[in-house]
This record gives sequence, C-alpha cells and structure tokens, in this order.
Amino acid sequence: MSLPPRQTAIVGIGATEFSKNSGRSELQLAAEAVKAALDDAGLRPADVDGLVSFVQDTNDELRLIRSVGIEQVTWASRTPFGGGGAMSTVQHAAAAIVSGAAEVVVIWRAFNERSGHRFGQPAQGPTQAGMSWHTPFGLDTPAKMYSLWFQGYMHRYGLTNEDFGRYAVVARRHAATNPKAWFYEQPITLDDHQSSRWIVEPIVRLLDCCQESDGGVALVVTSAERARHLAQPPVLVEAAAQSSVLAGDVLFNYYHDDLATFPEASHVADQLWRASGLSPADVDVAMIYENFSPIVFYLLEAYGFCGPGEAKDFIADGQIDLTGSLPVNTHGGLLGEAYIHGVNSIQEAVRQIRGTAVNQVAGAEVALATAGRSAVLLTRA
Amino acid sequence: MSLPPRQTAIVGIGATEFSKNSGRSELQLAAEAVKAALDDAGLRPADVDGLVSFVQDTNDELRLIRSVGIEQVTWASRTPFGGGGAMSTVQHAAAAIVSGAAEVVVIWRAFNERSGHRFGQPAQGPTQAGMSWHTPFGLDTPAKMYSLWFQGYMHRYGLTNEDFGRYAVVARRHAATNPKAWFYEQPITLDDHQSSRWIVEPIVRLLDCCQESDGGVALVVTSAERARHLAQPPVLVEAAAQSSVLAGDVLFNYYHDDLATFPEASHVADQLWRASGLSPADVDVAMIYENFSPIVFYLLEAYGFCGPGEAKDFIADGQIDLTGSLPVNTHGGLLGEAYIHGVNSIQEAVRQIRGTAVNQVAGAEVALATAGRSAVLLTRA
Repeated sequence: MSLPPRQTAIVGIGATEFSKNSGRSELQLAAEAVKAALDDAGLRPADVDGLVSFVQDTNDELRLIRSVGIEQVTWASRTPFGGGGAMSTVQHAAAAIVSGAAEVVVIWRAFNERSGHRFGQPAQGPTQAGMSWHTPFGLDTPAKMYSLWFQGYMHRYGLTNEDFGRYAVVARRHAATNPKAWFYEQPITLDDHQSSRWIVEPIVRLLDCCQESDGGVALVVTSAERARHLAQPPVLVEAAAQSSVLAGDVLFNYYHDDLATFPEASHVADQLWRASGLSPADVDVAMIYENFSPIVFYLLEAYGFCGPGEAKDFIADGQIDLTGSLPVNTHGGLLGEAYIHGVNSIQEAVRQIRGTAVNQVAGAEVALATAGRSAVLLTRA
Repeated sequence: MSLPPRQTAIVGIGATEFSKNSGRSELQLAAEAVKAALDDAGLRPADVDGLVSFVQDTNDELRLIRSVGIEQVTWASRTPFGGGGAMSTVQHAAAAIVSGAAEVVVIWRAFNERSGHRFGQPAQGPTQAGMSWHTPFGLDTPAKMYSLWFQGYMHRYGLTNEDFGRYAVVARRHAATNPKAWFYEQPITLDDHQSSRWIVEPIVRLLDCCQESDGGVALVVTSAERARHLAQPPVLVEAAAQSSVLAGDVLFNYYHDDLATFPEASHVADQLWRASGLSPADVDVAMIYENFSPIVFYLLEAYGFCGPGEAKDFIADGQIDLTGSLPVNTHGGLLGEAYIHGVNSIQEAVRQIRGTAVNQVAGAEVALATAGRSAVLLTRA
C-alpha cells in the first residue's frame, strides 16, 4: 500500500530565523512560519483547511488558527515518534488531500528547543516512553541512548569516531555557505572535530551532535492540480511513507536482531521505491535527519545508496559532497543549519527541486528527505 | 471537500470492562481492547498496518505494537482536541485507507481516567491550552468552563437545569438495561437529578456530568471491499468529518458571536449531509458526546434534528427515547455507560447498524456518532 504518486505538491515554505534564543513564544514562531509559507505559495490564510504537526509541538491548533486568521479547518492531525516522524507530516497532508478531507494543508513545527526545553539534557524523570527503566543505569540523554545502538554498527564494520567526523565536516562545509545556517561561515576541519569533547566515548563527540535550536518552519501542501496555478513551481510529492516495526523503538532502537541495521528505514525505502518506480540511482540529492552523525551512515545503507558497511568509504570518497554522486544535507543538516526537528530539511529538499538552494545541485529533479522511520521523495513537476 | 462515501468500513470493535479502578496499566487496557477488536473482525495482529489514537493517549505506538504483536505499520496519526476530536479518529483511518497509506487501521483509546489522572478535577497549573489565564478567576474545571457557555443557551431559550435533567434521565434509563454500563440497573428519576448536588449553580448538577472512567476501547477500519470478507457485517463509513473555526476553542468555546450555537458542529453536520446526500430525517439513531447534558441540546439543533431552541421540547416529548423519532445514546452515553472519551459511543453506533445493541433500534440503517467538532455517519452495507 502507498499513496498515489504525484497527486500532491509542496507549494509553499516559510521559516523564522534559526537561533539559540528567539526571544518570543513558540506560538509566534509557528504563526510567523505559517504566514511566510502561505505568502511563498501565494495563498491566503482563508485558503487553508488542514493542519498537521508533531504530537510534541506545544502549539494548540486553535490558537494558531486565530493567530494566522485561518477560517475553517476540516483536517487536523499530529505525527508521533518525535523527529523520526518528521517526514510523516507530508504523508498526513497528502493523505488528507488525496482522500478529499482537505484541500490546502499547512504543516508546522516551531519550538524554543534551545532557550526553552532542551531535548539533549539529561532526563529528570520518566518523561519519555521507556526512559524510566533506563535512566537509573545512566541512559539519560538521547546521545547516550543512541550510542548504545551506534556501537553495534561501529563494531561490525570497524569504524572509529573519525569516520563520523568526516560526515560532520561535510555538513559544516555546506552550512558555511548557507546564510540561514547557525554555523554560516564556520566550517570545521577533521582536526576540529577530533578535538571536540567526547559526549559518549568512544562513539560521539560534541561535533557529531545536532544543534539545539529555536525556530519555526512551515510547509503548504495541496493537490498537484491546484499547485499548477500558484506562485511557485510545484514540487511534487512522488512518495511519502513511514514505518514502525515489531522490535522497533525510537530512542532505544537496539532491540533488533542486528544493531548494524535500521530496519524501519529499509522498510520506508522499500515503500518509496515501490510507490515511485524510482531507485536509489535516480535520487539527485538527499536530506538525511542526523540528530547524530552515525544516523547518516545507517541511512545511506538502508536506502541502498551504498552497500552494508560501505557508508564509511562512500563519505570518505566525497560522494556526499556537492560534487559527489549524492550530495547530502546541502543546507548543512541539523548539525550545521539548525535542529528544527527535521522539517527544515524538507524545506531544503523543496529548494533543491525549485532550483533555489544556496548550495544548488545543478538540475536536481529528485530529492529525498528522510528521518529514518519516515521519508518523502520529491520531484519536479 | 470530503471523504468519498462508503469506501471504508468499521469491521471490528473491542473493549475492556468499564470501571472506576481497572487495576492495570493503560497499556494493558489498550492492548486488550485492540486484541478484542481484531478478534471481533476475524483479523490477526499481523494484518494491521495503521494506528490512530488521541494526542492525549499516553500509550506509545511502539509499545502497543509489541504488546499486541503487530508487525509493520505504515500509518500512525493522532487527533488533537481531546474528546472533541473523538470521531476524527475514524476520519484519519478512512483517509489513510482511501489514500492508500494503510489497509487495516486500528483506532484505540485507553486510560485510567478515574483511578489515574481525572480530567474533572481542578487544574493545578497551566496544563491545558489557555487554562492558565482563566484559572485565577475560578475557571479551573471543565464543568465551570463549559457552564459559562451553557448559560448563554439557557438564557436565550429560557431553560432551567430541570430541562437538562430530562436528558440525564433518558441516558440513565438506557444505561440501566446495558450490562456493560457502569450504571446498569440504576435508572434515575427527574427528582433524583434535581436532588443531586450543584456542580455549577444554576447550570449543571452532578447528574449532568459524564462519568470519570477507567477502560479501553478499539475499532478496526478497513476498505469496504475487504470488509465484505471478514467476520462481521460491515458497517460503512458513509461520512466522517471534523471542524475547527476561527473563533472556536475547546474548553472555552465562548468566543463565538452567539453563545446559543455550536458553529463547529453545524460545520461538521453540513459536511456530513453534503458528503452523504443524507439529511437529518434519514438518521435512525444518534450517539452524542455529552461530557455534560447541555451539549446534547446544542447538537440536536446544530444537526437540524430540531430547530434552534427546540431541543428542550424535543427531549421532553420523548423524541430521543427508544420509542422516539431519534433514539439518542442508546448505550447510556458518557453519563450512563462510561466516559471512554467518546470512542465507546462510536462502538454503540456500530452495534446499532449491526443490529446487536442491547437497546436495539429496530431496522437501524443510519447511525450518527458526534462529538461536536467531529462526527461519523455509519450505514449498513
């Protein structure tokens, strides 16, 4: 089962600045981003009849409706799984439109994740699913939880932290030429990476971790038909999918038989290729959700961009650079641009298809944005 | 815009007992209800590929997947707005199926709402949207918040609390013959109602308030085509819709120009009639979400079952009784059966169409379940 290809399109994107202290409410961030996305699309608030966000987003739909001036909404949904569900927002919007439940759906994600509640800090109690059992044993931050999983991958394929650093260098190089990125004009060397402090020795260092960021982003999705009459060149939703599997988990994804794999991502990839008829070789540019550098390695392999254990050499060989076979995180990713829970990466995929990215991949026609357990494949109309 | 009629069906329903102290976790309640619903449908856990619940439900999808034995999920969504979004769960499931995102979607809602966190208790802080501003002025429980709105209706049409009591008597009469109901064999008289203590004088008394309940319920939704080959007579989703409007709110719905109306409900009703081609006269039985008795009055009018201000006489004349023109809440409603956040009312609508309700409406072919800002219209295959 999958959504029908090319029936819906992303027609607007909008964002606030990305910072460490926005100085305003999460509601204001959301409203600013939504208004910007509607302006980008050439639509009015009254055109909107659907809303999609994350379960974790603190903004109430009704307050956002009042703040933006939306009049009547016939679809509202939220995606679970935190950032892992980031790309499912597009699946929700597309399903609402294809099924007839709504015509113009706004996706938003807005938070003060640096100046307010910081996800990266140690848990103070059983605030997230499962955390209560692991906390007494020291697994009290996402970095620690994920590292237990990453270690299996490193062991299997003989990686060291330096290999992860090669990804971080690429992300920061891309961010360095992106004026919207927090780390604009601040590239790093592998030495810088290797000199940054350990967060979980010997697995991830500070420069392997995504940022903590304040900001808001929004997307506007509508039918491919309506998209043809709007302000921007339509960016078609070729496929959008999500996956959860029996032995899976979000922060504690080490119940799988093989810790060197990411089964949810493989399942999502299968859905994308089947729904679109495309293959890894067709993808021109990929945005890969990296709360931590090693995730990029898992996902390059899960999607078949390289074979199992080959991500290390794929990255070292420059394949994910702007001049490589698959430029990755051309905005700088969550390490370099900002951590707006992955939705900012969908926006970069949209810009690549529009041809307006600061680090534009010439002639990009197929862009992937994936968060492991969810993904969207975008194509040019 | 609306979902296409009769493309999906509710094929299974399951529930735990409804109690004041379940003695087990909310996860166990959810898992028991889901398993029961699958058994009812004649499906296995491995057949499920979609999950829908409330944003407020504390159960994690991944823990439920593991508990029940579901293998791969390609759709997960949550509905905002608390109980007001109860019927939107069916809209989500239907959209997922119609759009191709999933084939067999399980909806669940499970909580220990009496032995655990009680919604009816005074707010201890700004835990719900907007509550922080109103709490210092004494609006610290749902009963108080809603009453401010209800008072406008009473004033406009000259109702007293005794009028609301006539609804409560009907709900408890229906519950009295429903062995699943908490108030089984405990009907009340209007005198009982008028003797119960004031919760918000002169608006709602104790017996106008829904229960606080522990329990879990689940529904299974699939395509109308697949439904024909399953264990139960399919109950078709004729229409499913939700609405939020510019001046609306959930607990504080008194920003509308006219406090004697429920604009979201009127908007939902319009969608149902337009999508289905049916009219109020076609509805054989209605389940109306009543956290408090007065809501039934608003909804009877919003759906056009009677004119503005006529609900008082419609109810007094016996029209919502089992022998009336529109039997309402034949399971006893949230006042009489249990408060499982309205999803138990969808189950009663399913039983009415199947012909298996304890208070069966003879020959029922069209059943409505509405929670004000969301609704589903079910019909016989």
